[in-house]
Amino acid sequence: MPRSLAREDFSSNVRASFRKQKIMKLFGARITRLERGLVEISARNRPDLEQQDGYVHAGALVALADSAGGYAALTLLPSGSRVLSVEVKLNFLRPAIGTVIRGRARVKKMGRTIAVCEIEALMKQDRKWVTCGWGSQTIYCLRE
Amino acid sequence: MPRSLAREDFSSNVRASFRKQKIMKLFGARITRLERGLVEISARNRPDLEQQDGYVHAGALVALADSAGGYAALTLLPSGSRVLSVEVKLNFLRPAIGTVIRGRARVKKMGRTIAVCEIEALMKQDRKWVTCGWGSQTIYCLRE
Amino acid sequence: MPRSLAREDFSSNVRASFRKQKIMKLFGARITRLERGLVEISARNRPDLEQQDGYVHAGALVALADSAGGYAALTLLPSGSRVLSVEVKLNFLRPAIGTVIRGRARVKKMGRTIAVCEIEALMKQDRKWVTCGWGSQTIYCLRE
Amino acid sequence: MPRSLAREDFSSNVRASFRKQKIMKLFGARITRLERGLVEISARNRPDLEQQDGYVHAGALVALADSAGGYAALTLLPSGSRVLSVEVKLNFLRPAIGTVIRGRARVKKMGRTIAVCEIEALMKQDRKWVTCGWGSQTIYCLRE
Repeated sequence: MPRSLAREDFSSNVRASFRKQKIMKLFGARITRLERGLVEISARNRPDLEQQDGYVHAGALVALADSAGGYAALTLLPSGSRVLSVEVKLNFLRPAIGTVIRGRARVKKMGRTIAVCEIEALMKQDRKWVTCGWGSQTIYCLRE
Repeated sequence: MPRSLAREDFSSNVRASFRKQKIMKLFGARITRLERGLVEISARNRPDLEQQDGYVHAGALVALADSAGGYAALTLLPSGSRVLSVEVKLNFLRPAIGTVIRGRARVKKMGRTIAVCEIEALMKQDRKWVTCGWGSQTIYCLRE
Repeated sequence: MPRSLAREDFSSNVRASFRKQKIMKLFGARITRLERGLVEISARNRPDLEQQDGYVHAGALVALADSAGGYAALTLLPSGSRVLSVEVKLNFLRPAIGTVIRGRARVKKMGRTIAVCEIEALMKQDRKWVTCGWGSQTIYCLRE
Repeated sequence: MPRSLAREDFSSNVRASFRKQKIMKLFGARITRLERGLVEISARNRPDLEQQDGYVHAGALVALADSAGGYAALTLLPSGSRVLSVEVKLNFLRPAIGTVIRGRARVKKMGRTIAVCEIEALMKQDRKWVTCGWGSQTIYCLRE
């Protein structure tokens, strides 16, 4: 059984799963980067996602980062595999202000059943991407 | 300066802030319990909040739990104070299936500037509430 | 295969493993409570464990809490099973001052391969036990 | 008030504090790298630090990483400042086997009162350093 997949395979796996995540549609999110072990999901910011101070709510930041993490793990798993979040932890480094929200995840360690991702939530401010949330995620991998 | 407020005061503080959280409106969420140091926020489950397996997405669970935590801290602060999430961590214990989603938070420790909450994400399944997410949150308190 | 063990069985499993943890000897720690899903490990405080302000160092608090968590999970597993920490998170609620240090862990959820514990670090101050650290731990269970 | 210090200043601040951490002496640990925002603390591995499988115990890994994090923050603070861990979280990526243990921390964000560090626990295996633990730490800064 192969440890990882050809690009066309992991890409179609991830995109098929992503289309089922209805909350990503609610957020207007789409996959904007998809590499082996590295995924980004982005959405235009809009008032709907605000908390009380006008920043993007922690839950929206976690949502994009958590999905990115699951898919980053999925790119390294055999076709037909599934992933589940075991736990997610995010530190909020700066107020989440900007025009675009982005969750980014990189696989730090892919074990046989446990993967660990470094996750980030970025905001596009003017033309720069600023890291507003940063943390870690543990993922359970059900290998096909 | 009082360490905490009369019920009418903390209640109006929390409700005023909650009304500004537009993402809570997006989720159809409302405050369903509001006590000194303990807050619950609930929303009807709906397909819009699903991840790829039909469970409620981690981000929605974190959103309700994180808001509940901030408000649980706010009930113990002087009128006019503000709260910010420093970090949030949630373990996902069971698939989040059910008709109602609930974030619940209890203040474990209220310090002068740092509060720590125990947070939970519950789902109503038949007539029972099941804990699907459980974790902790660190909050920065800007006392008035 | 039984889901859990008779008391005599889980007790001898845990104690046999604990004797192999040489760091527990270094800390002068012993098991002071051992129930199904709940374990406490205690050590006399001593200057050797101090950080720069004279409090018990975070690492010593985590050590006792982490071991307690692994063993709390082990009490619910078949004889011959093994446990490994996947991740540990502790919030420090108060300065760790006192005469005795105690790590306490309770299993919040025992799954087939993943267990989640609530962990605490307590200090005995005069005659009272005070919670100085509180958090969570994810454990990987290798069932026999 | 300066935002950070000349090298000679932060170095003497950190070393003076480190000497007071008696647990570092118990572990035989010393500072092996000290730069602005980046600190490493190392100790020879020895049987005393083992858990039940002969790996270094999670508590010892957290101890070195946590101290490294506090000092990494201290290098960016005015002379006379103090730091306290708010919370620490470590994922265990690989069995901690090797001849030398190293905690490494980098400041990800230095705010006015809250700092966030990326922390690591490494082991020297043959001639290579392997990351066995990885995570995050929140620090409270009492600026002079």
